[in-house]
Amino acid sequence: MLLDKINTPGDLKGLSKSDLGDLCKEIRKVLIDTVMKNGGHLASNLGVVELTLAMHLAFDSPKDKFVFDVGHQSYVHKLLTGRYDKFHTLRQLGGISGFPNPNESEYDSFVSGHASTSVSAALGMARARDIKGEDYHVVALIGDGSVGGGEAFEALNDAGNSRTKLIVILNDNEMSIGKNVGGLSRHLTKLRTSKRYMETKSDLSNFLKKFGKAGDSVISALSTAKEKIKYSSMTGVYFEELGFTYLGPVDGHNLEEVTETLKRAKNLDEPVLVHVLTKKGYGYKEAEIKPEAFHGVSSITAKKPTGKSYSQAVGEILYKEMSNNKNMAVITAAMSSGCGLKSVENDYPDRFFDVGIAEQHATTLCAGLASGGVVPVFCVYSTFLQRAYDQLIHDVCLQNLHCVFLIDRAGAVGNDGATHQGVFDLSYLTHIPNMTVLCPSDISELEGMIKYAVNDMSTPVAIRYPRGEISLSVSEKFDISKAEVIKEGKDIAIISVGNMKEVSLACAQELEKDNISTAVINLRCVKPFDEETVRKYVSECRMAVTIEDNVISGGAGSFIAQKIPANYLHIGWPDEFIPHGKVSELMEKYQLDKESIVQKIKSQI
Amino acid sequence: MLLDKINTPGDLKGLSKSDLGDLCKEIRKVLIDTVMKNGGHLASNLGVVELTLAMHLAFDSPKDKFVFDVGHQSYVHKLLTGRYDKFHTLRQLGGISGFPNPNESEYDSFVSGHASTSVSAALGMARARDIKGEDYHVVALIGDGSVGGGEAFEALNDAGNSRTKLIVILNDNEMSIGKNVGGLSRHLTKLRTSKRYMETKSDLSNFLKKFGKAGDSVISALSTAKEKIKYSSMTGVYFEELGFTYLGPVDGHNLEEVTETLKRAKNLDEPVLVHVLTKKGYGYKEAEIKPEAFHGVSSITAKKPTGKSYSQAVGEILYKEMSNNKNMAVITAAMSSGCGLKSVENDYPDRFFDVGIAEQHATTLCAGLASGGVVPVFCVYSTFLQRAYDQLIHDVCLQNLHCVFLIDRAGAVGNDGATHQGVFDLSYLTHIPNMTVLCPSDISELEGMIKYAVNDMSTPVAIRYPRGEISLSVSEKFDISKAEVIKEGKDIAIISVGNMKEVSLACAQELEKDNISTAVINLRCVKPFDEETVRKYVSECRMAVTIEDNVISGGAGSFIAQKIPANYLHIGWPDEFIPHGKVSELMEKYQLDKESIVQKIKSQI
Repeated sequence: MLLDKINTPGDLKGLSKSDLGDLCKEIRKVLIDTVMKNGGHLASNLGVVELTLAMHLAFDSPKDKFVFDVGHQSYVHKLLTGRYDKFHTLRQLGGISGFPNPNESEYDSFVSGHASTSVSAALGMARARDIKGEDYHVVALIGDGSVGGGEAFEALNDAGNSRTKLIVILNDNEMSIGKNVGGLSRHLTKLRTSKRYMETKSDLSNFLKKFGKAGDSVISALSTAKEKIKYSSMTGVYFEELGFTYLGPVDGHNLEEVTETLKRAKNLDEPVLVHVLTKKGYGYKEAEIKPEAFHGVSSITAKKPTGKSYSQAVGEILYKEMSNNKNMAVITAAMSSGCGLKSVENDYPDRFFDVGIAEQHATTLCAGLASGGVVPVFCVYSTFLQRAYDQLIHDVCLQNLHCVFLIDRAGAVGNDGATHQGVFDLSYLTHIPNMTVLCPSDISELEGMIKYAVNDMSTPVAIRYPRGEISLSVSEKFDISKAEVIKEGKDIAIISVGNMKEVSLACAQELEKDNISTAVINLRCVKPFDEETVRKYVSECRMAVTIEDNVISGGAGSFIAQKIPANYLHIGWPDEFIPHGKVSELMEKYQLDKESIVQKIKSQI
Repeated sequence: MLLDKINTPGDLKGLSKSDLGDLCKEIRKVLIDTVMKNGGHLASNLGVVELTLAMHLAFDSPKDKFVFDVGHQSYVHKLLTGRYDKFHTLRQLGGISGFPNPNESEYDSFVSGHASTSVSAALGMARARDIKGEDYHVVALIGDGSVGGGEAFEALNDAGNSRTKLIVILNDNEMSIGKNVGGLSRHLTKLRTSKRYMETKSDLSNFLKKFGKAGDSVISALSTAKEKIKYSSMTGVYFEELGFTYLGPVDGHNLEEVTETLKRAKNLDEPVLVHVLTKKGYGYKEAEIKPEAFHGVSSITAKKPTGKSYSQAVGEILYKEMSNNKNMAVITAAMSSGCGLKSVENDYPDRFFDVGIAEQHATTLCAGLASGGVVPVFCVYSTFLQRAYDQLIHDVCLQNLHCVFLIDRAGAVGNDGATHQGVFDLSYLTHIPNMTVLCPSDISELEGMIKYAVNDMSTPVAIRYPRGEISLSVSEKFDISKAEVIKEGKDIAIISVGNMKEVSLACAQELEKDNISTAVINLRCVKPFDEETVRKYVSECRMAVTIEDNVISGGAGSFIAQKIPANYLHIGWPDEFIPHGKVSELMEKYQLDKESIVQKIKSQI
C-alpha cells in the first residue's frame, strides 16, 4: 500500500506519475470500503481524488490553507494528511469527523458542513494574512451547487472587488446534492461546452484570413479590443465581471493538467477562479451512473430500517395533498430526495420548486406565494432553516402569511455531527410572533398536522420531526390544539415533545416500579401549547419534567416554564455543540436516555 | 394642488405632460416638508419621484403588484395611492408606516424593511399567479445596494432560469445606504458608462468599413455571431447570463423614457431587468450633494440629542483601539455611517472592510479573519444580524472563534417600526453554545466591555446596545463577569439588563415609597451571567423582576429563570410585532415604562 507511506502531503512529492495513478486507485478502494461500512458521502469524494491530490501537489499544506465548502468532500484530504490509520473510525463516536475540523488536524483550517461559506472564510484568512504581513496561499474548494448560494455570491462579489490574492477552485460536477438549478448553472453548462465555441472562434479567424491583410488587421483589431470585447460563451464572464481571473475549464481527472493549472493560479497576485470539471462517483461505475444514490450512503452494517422514515411518510402525505389541493405548492432547497419529495417533483412539476441551495430565497419565495394566494410547503432540514431565520421573522411572520414549514432532521441527526444537528429549531422558532410550532409523535399525528396546517390554518406554521423511523402506531382522531394525556399520574408530570414520547413512557414505567406515580403528556403543539392541560398536571404534581430533542436553552421546556411557574426539570441537549456518533450513543452520552432521565428525576424529586 | 386630486393611480392617466412635471415638483415639496418634520428617508425618495410615477403610468396597481425592496423608498408610491391626506402622520404612532404595509393599503403588496428580499417575493407572487391561472404583472423595485445581497442573487438565479414572467427594476443610484462595494457594483459602473463603449463599437464599424466589401462581410459575420459574441461592456451580461432580458440603462428622471421602457418590458413574456439610473436627492440641491446625510433624516422638531449616541461612543472607542491593537479589524455591512465608523473607515482603510449589504458573508468573513489570527469586530444592527444567525452558529461559535459583534440598535428602535425593532437578539444569541453576551448600561461599561472583548477574550462575544443616547455617568472600575448591585433591598429583586437600568432604579424608588424594599442588580453579562449574585438576591427576595429591552420569550429573563427557579415577573416586549412610534410611546403602550412596571409588581407581589 502506498497510503501507508503517506504521513504528510510532503510524502506525495517524491511519487512517480505511475505511483500517483496507483495511489488514486488505492484511495478509491479505501473510500468505497470505509463509506459502505460506516456510511457517509461517497460519490462526491470519489469525484475529487485527483483534484485533492493536485491541491496537495501544487500547494504546501498546512502552511497554505484549504477551505472545503460543505466539507463532506474532504475525505481524500484526510487520507493524505496523516489520518489513513484512523480512517476506519470515520463518523463514529470518538472517531474522525465526516467534515473538516481544526481540532482534529492542523491540516483542517475551517469547519464546514453548511454550503456556500468557503469563499467568505477564505477571504477572511487571506485578509488576516495580509494584515499580519504573512505569506501563504488560501484556497477555497467550492462545488457548483454551493456557488449558487447567496453567501458565496456575496463573498465572490467582495473578493473580486477587493483584489485580495485568493484562489477559488470551482469543482463543477454538474450536480449539487440534488440536480443543479438556476441561471448560474446554465452559465456553467455553457462554459463546459466551450470547446464548441473555441471552434467557432477559429472558424471566424479562418474566415477573416480569407481577406488577407485586411483580415489580419481585423484579427489584430479584435485582439487589441479584447479588454472591451468579451466572448461570454468562451470565458467565465460571470466570474470575470465580479473581478476574478478565470482559468478553465480543466479536466479534473487529469492530475497533471489540474496540478499545472493550480500552479499557474498560485503565481497570480489577484483573486483567481479555477474551473475544474469532475464526475461524481468517478472510478466506481455504480456511483457514476447513480450519483444521487451514492451522495449520502448508509452504513451496510447498520440496522436496516424496518419501517418507514419520517421523510418518506411526509413525501407520501404531501403527494396525496397535492392532488387534493390544487392551490398548494411544494418548495425545496436542493433536498428533494432527502426530504422524500421525488414523486411530488416528478408528478407535479408546475407546483414543485427546487430553488437550489438557497434557503433564504426559498423562505421569502414562500411568503410571496402565500401573498399570491397559494399555500407553500417548504420542506427543509432543521439545521439549514437556520439560514432563513431573518426571512421567517421579516417576510413570513411579520405579515402573518400562511406558509407551512416541514422541518426534517429536527433534533440530533447522529453521524453527520455538530454541523448538522437540528437541535436549535424550537429555540429559534418559539420566540417569533405569529409562528405555530407542532411536533408529531407518530404517523397519524404527522398526517393530521400536515393536513391541518395546509387546509385549516391561515397563519405561519412549522412542523418539526426527526431523522429516522416514524412510529406507525395510530392515534385516535385528535384535536391538534390539545395535549394528549397518555398516562395519568400524580407525583411527576412528564411533558413529552414529539419523538420523545417513547422514552417518556419508558421513564414513567420505570418510575412506577418505585411507586412514583407519573403522568405523561404528549404536548403536540409547542406554540401555542395547551395551557389548560399542562397547568392542571404541572400544578397537581410535585415536579414537572419536560423532555425534548432540542437544546434546553430557549426550547419547549423554557417556553412552558415562562408561562406556568413550577418546579421543573428540563431534559434536552446541553449548552454545547453535539459531536458525531449514533443518535442512541449521543442520547446516552448527554443523558437523554431512559436510565439517565429516571436517575435525574429520582435525585431531584 | 394636483396631489389633492390623485385619489388612485388611475387619476394620473388623465394628466398632461406639463401637469406631470408640476406633480413631480409638488411631490418633492411634500417629501421635503414631511420628512424634515417627522424624520425618515429623504434622498432615496427624492430620487424615485419620476420612476414611481412611471410605474403607476405603465402598470395598473393594485391589480399589478409592486414589491419595493427595503421599502423606505415607497413614500412617493404612498402619495400616489390615496395616502396624501394621511402623509403628515408618517412614522408616528398610529400613523402611516415608513415602509410598505398590506394592512395599511391594498396598493402595498408586501412588507419590506430588510434588503434584498423583493425578487424572491415577486417571484413567489408571479408563480402563484401562474398556478392560479391569473393575469397580472409583478414588478420588483430593487436598488443597486440591495442587488448585491445574497438573497437577491439567489432569487435572480432562480427567476432567470425558470423563465417566469417577472419585471425587476434596478434603481441604480450608485449608492446603497453607504457607498457601494463589490464586483457587481463595478459591473454596473461599466453599464452606466456604456455610452463610451457604444462609441468604441462605432469606431470598430468605421474601421471595418475602410475595408469595403470585406469589412461589410465582417460586420455581417459579427452580427450573425452576436449570440455567441457578447460585448460585456455594452449589455447587462451579468443579468443576461442569469437568464434575464436586460433593458437599459435608462435615465430615471426622464419620465417618458422610463414609462416607455416599462411598457416594453410589460410586453415581454419572460424575466426582464430594467436598469434605471437615478440620482439620490434629485431636485433638492443639499440632498444631491450629500445624499448620505439625507438618507435617514431626523425630525427637526424632535428633541435634539444633548449627549452622545451609543454609535458615536462605539466609533470613538474603536478608533482608539484600532491604534492600540494592530491585530484587529473592523467590519461593517453597509452601515459605516450608522454605526459611527466613518473615522475608522477613513484612517484605517487596510483594516476596515465594508462588505456591502451582506451580513452572512460579513459573519463568516469574521470567522475567517479570526482563524487567521486577527480579531474582527463586526458592527451591525440587531435586526440585520438576524440574517447571519446560521453563520453565528456554524462558522463562529461551533469553532469557538474570537469574533466580536457590536450589536447596535438593539431593543426597540422607534419610528422605523416593526421591520427594524431589534428586540430578538437576546433570544437568538443566548441559546448558541460558546457565545458570551454583554449588555452595557453606561459609557464606561461600554468602553470596558469593548476593550475586554477585543483584548482579553479568545471566544465569541456579542455586546448589544440600543439606539440613541448613552448614559455618560461613569461607573467605578468593574469586573465584567460580576453583576453590579446598584441598590440593596429585601422584598423585590429587580434584575436590569443594559439600558433598562434607569427605569429599573426609578421603579425601585417608586416601590420604596410604599415600603417595598427593592434591590436593583445591573446584570452586565447576560451569558454567562453571575449566578452567585443573582441567586443570592433572587432567593432572599419574595419576587424577582427581570427587565429587558427584548422579547420576553427566550430572552435574558427566561435564560435566568431556567437556571435559578424562583417567583419571577418578566418585563420585556410581548409575543407580537411592535409597530412604529417613539420609543417612549411604545414603552408606555406595551407597559415597559415605570408606571406600568410598578403597577404590575404591586399587583403580583
